[in-house]
Amino acid sequence: MVKEVILGKGKLAQEAAKQLAVIDTNVKNEALKKMAGALVQKSNEILEANQKDMEQGKKNGLPDALLDRLLLTEDRLEDMAEGLRALISLPDPIGKVDNMWKQPNGLEIAQVKVPLGVIGIIYESRPNVTVDAAGLCLKTGNAVLLRGGSEAFHSNQALAWVIAHAAETAGIPAGAIQLVETTDREAVQVMLTMNQYLDVLIPRGGAGLIQHVLNNATVPVIETGVGNCHTFIDCDANLDMAVDIAVNAKVHRPGVCNAMENLLVHEEVAAQFLPRMQERMNQHGVVLRGCTKTREILADIEDAVEEDWHTEYLDLVLAVKVVGNLDEAIDHIYRYGTKHSEAIVTENYSTARKFTHIVDAAAVYVNASTRFTDGFQFGFGAEIGISTQKLHARGPMGPEQLTTFKYIVQGDGQIRS
Amino acid sequence: MVKEVILGKGKLAQEAAKQLAVIDTNVKNEALKKMAGALVQKSNEILEANQKDMEQGKKNGLPDALLDRLLLTEDRLEDMAEGLRALISLPDPIGKVDNMWKQPNGLEIAQVKVPLGVIGIIYESRPNVTVDAAGLCLKTGNAVLLRGGSEAFHSNQALAWVIAHAAETAGIPAGAIQLVETTDREAVQVMLTMNQYLDVLIPRGGAGLIQHVLNNATVPVIETGVGNCHTFIDCDANLDMAVDIAVNAKVHRPGVCNAMENLLVHEEVAAQFLPRMQERMNQHGVVLRGCTKTREILADIEDAVEEDWHTEYLDLVLAVKVVGNLDEAIDHIYRYGTKHSEAIVTENYSTARKFTHIVDAAAVYVNASTRFTDGFQFGFGAEIGISTQKLHARGPMGPEQLTTFKYIVQGDGQIRS
Repeated sequence: MVKEVILGKGKLAQEAAKQLAVIDTNVKNEALKKMAGALVQKSNEILEANQKDMEQGKKNGLPDALLDRLLLTEDRLEDMAEGLRALISLPDPIGKVDNMWKQPNGLEIAQVKVPLGVIGIIYESRPNVTVDAAGLCLKTGNAVLLRGGSEAFHSNQALAWVIAHAAETAGIPAGAIQLVETTDREAVQVMLTMNQYLDVLIPRGGAGLIQHVLNNATVPVIETGVGNCHTFIDCDANLDMAVDIAVNAKVHRPGVCNAMENLLVHEEVAAQFLPRMQERMNQHGVVLRGCTKTREILADIEDAVEEDWHTEYLDLVLAVKVVGNLDEAIDHIYRYGTKHSEAIVTENYSTARKFTHIVDAAAVYVNASTRFTDGFQFGFGAEIGISTQKLHARGPMGPEQLTTFKYIVQGDGQIRS
Repeated sequence: MVKEVILGKGKLAQEAAKQLAVIDTNVKNEALKKMAGALVQKSNEILEANQKDMEQGKKNGLPDALLDRLLLTEDRLEDMAEGLRALISLPDPIGKVDNMWKQPNGLEIAQVKVPLGVIGIIYESRPNVTVDAAGLCLKTGNAVLLRGGSEAFHSNQALAWVIAHAAETAGIPAGAIQLVETTDREAVQVMLTMNQYLDVLIPRGGAGLIQHVLNNATVPVIETGVGNCHTFIDCDANLDMAVDIAVNAKVHRPGVCNAMENLLVHEEVAAQFLPRMQERMNQHGVVLRGCTKTREILADIEDAVEEDWHTEYLDLVLAVKVVGNLDEAIDHIYRYGTKHSEAIVTENYSTARKFTHIVDAAAVYVNASTRFTDGFQFGFGAEIGISTQKLHARGPMGPEQLTTFKYIVQGDGQIRS
C-alpha cells in the first residue's frame, strides 16, 4: 500500500519534471515569490502543525537541542521566506550552453545545462530543509520528492502543502513539490530503489541515515556530510593567524561538518604555538586530547588514542598531533581525512603549493578557516548540502550542481560512414 | 582469500593514485608511448595467451561472433597501440582551472580539475578494453582496477602485465594499472562494495552485467550502455535525407547502443516515406515490424507488439510506428526511450526547436544519424563508454569525464564570523 502511494508520487513527479524542464525562469521566479508569501500568510497553520510536533517531541523526551531544531517561529518562517526570495535573483543555470563546437563533418554540438529530473531528498529533523530544498530544486527545474523525519511530520506536511499549493498558482505543474506523507519506514525503502522515477537521491542527516541510504540505494546517491577536517600549522606559519584560524575552525560552530576536528602542528613551532592555542581554546571550553609530543608541552590534557584521529566529534573536543614535517601532516590527512575540508597555515610558498596540490579534499585551504566550505560562503547563493564524494558534485552543492546536461547535435543530413 | 587479494590491490591502487594525481603530463605521455611500444614488442607472448583463450572458447562452444571479439592479431594489437599513441596528443585535463573567483572577504577560490582517484572497470569479452581503459585512466591521472571476463582471462592477463610493466619503466607507480587475476565471482562482489579504495565503478558489457553492478554496488556507479534510440521523421522532413539517416542509424552497426531501434513517422508523410524506407532496409536484410497504420501501408511486415517498443534489438530488426504529430512522437520517446540518443528529421524550425528542448536524452539530433553518439565522433579523442545516467557524466565519456575537481581556497587569515 505504501509502495503504491510512493510509486504514484514518483510517476507524478516525473510527469511534472518533464514540464518543469522547459518552463521559463520568469514562471519559476514568480512561483518562488508566491511560495515565500504563502509561508508568511499561512504562518498560523504552519505554527499550529509545528506545535503538534513539539508536543509529541516533548512527550517522547527529545533532547533540548533537537527540540530547538524542530521549533518554528514567525521569525524562522520569515527566514525561510527570505531564503526563497534570495533564489529569485540567482541566475537560472538551465539552458546555459557550456560549450559548443563544430565537428569536421559539419555537425554542430552544443552542451546545454538541463535539470537532473526528479530529486529525492531524505532528511532528518529540521523542517527548514523542506522549504530550502523545494526552492532550490524548483529554481533549477527539478521536481522533488521529500521524505522528512517523523519528529517533524506535521510541520513538514504543513510547509510542503503551503509551498506546493502556492507554486501551482504560479503555473508550476502539480507534482513538482511533493512530500512523502507517511512515517512508515517502507517509504524510504521504496524511494531507494525507485530508479524508474528518481534520477538522484540526496540524504541529509546523521551518519546512520547516510550509510543506510548508501548501502541500500540503487538510485544514484550524492553522499553528504561527514567531515573529519584538519588544520596543519606549519613551521613557517604566522602564529597569531594560526591561533585565530584554529580557534575559529573549532569553536565557531562545532556541530557542523566543516568544523575542524584534528589539529596538526609542526614540531618546530609546537612549543610556541600549543600553549597559546590552549589558552584560547580553554576560553571557549574546548577539551583537548593530545599525542605524546603534544602532552610533553601541554601536560594537563588527555591522551589522544587511535580512535580520536578517526572521530568527527561535532563537539567542543579537539585532537592535537605534533608532526615532524609537511609530508607527515599530508600522510596523516590522507589516512584519516574524509576529503571534505583541509587547511594549512603557512607563509612558505612551496609548502603551500605542495599542500594544495597533494591534499585530496573537496576544499583545500591556505591561511583560512575550514568553516568557509559552504554554498553561501563560496558565493553560490544557496546550497542543498555538501558532497563528500567525487562523482558529479564535490563540496558545496549550489544550483549548478543540481543540473546535468544534454548534447544537442545539429546537422544537415550527416550519416556515419 | 579472494577478498584479501582484491582489498590488497585496492589499497595499492589508492597509494598509486595519490602519486599519479600529481605526476606531470610528460611522464604520463612517456608511459603511454612505452605501453604502445611494448604491445608490439611483446606481441608473441600476448598472442600466445590469446590462443589459450581461443582454444578454451572453442571447447566451451562460444558463438563465432564472441570468438571474433576475443581474437587478437598483430593488426589488432597495432590498433590498440595506435589508440594509446593517440592519447599522447590529447590535452591533459588535470590541473585545468575551470573557474576562479574572489569573494568579498578576499578569499580566492579556484575550481581545479583533479583525477577521480581509483576507477574500477568491470567488463566482458573484448580484451581491447584492458588497454583502452588503462590508457585513458592513466592519461587522466587515475589508477585503474580492471576485472575482465573469464573468456579473455589469459589475454587480459598478458595485456595488463605488458602495459603495467611498460608504464612502470616510465616512472608510473606500481599499482596504477592492475588486473584482478581470478575468475572467481567473489572478486566482483568485493569490488562492488570496496568504497574505501574505489571512487567509481564503470561496468561495460551486456544488460545483465550492468544491472548486477547497479543493484549490488555501494561504490558510485556510472551506468553505461543501453540505448533504445528513436528517429522521428517529421511531416516537414526532406524525405531523401530521412531515408539515408534512418538506414544509416539502423544498419551501419546494428549491435551498438547508438543504433536506431524504433522509427517514428509522421502520418502525413507515411505513405510516401515508408515504401522507400522499406526498399532500402530490405537491401540490408532489416526485418521490419509495424504498428497497425504502418501495416496498412507496408502490408507484408510483421505486427509490432508492446514489447517491441521496449526492445533494444541490437540486430537488423526495426519497429516502425506512425504518429499523428510531434507531441505524440515526443510522448512515445519519453515513455519508451532510454535517454541515450534521439533524432528528428525535419526542415521546420519550430519543430526542431521544440524537439531539442523537450526530448530528454544524452544526445538529441536534428537531421543526423544517432550513430554519432561516440567519444571519437564528438571530438573527445577517446572514450571509456557512454553514460546513460544523468549524474556526473552523460553520453560519451572522454578524458574530462574521468575527472572531478577540488576547490583551492587561498586567504590571508580569513575566519568566519
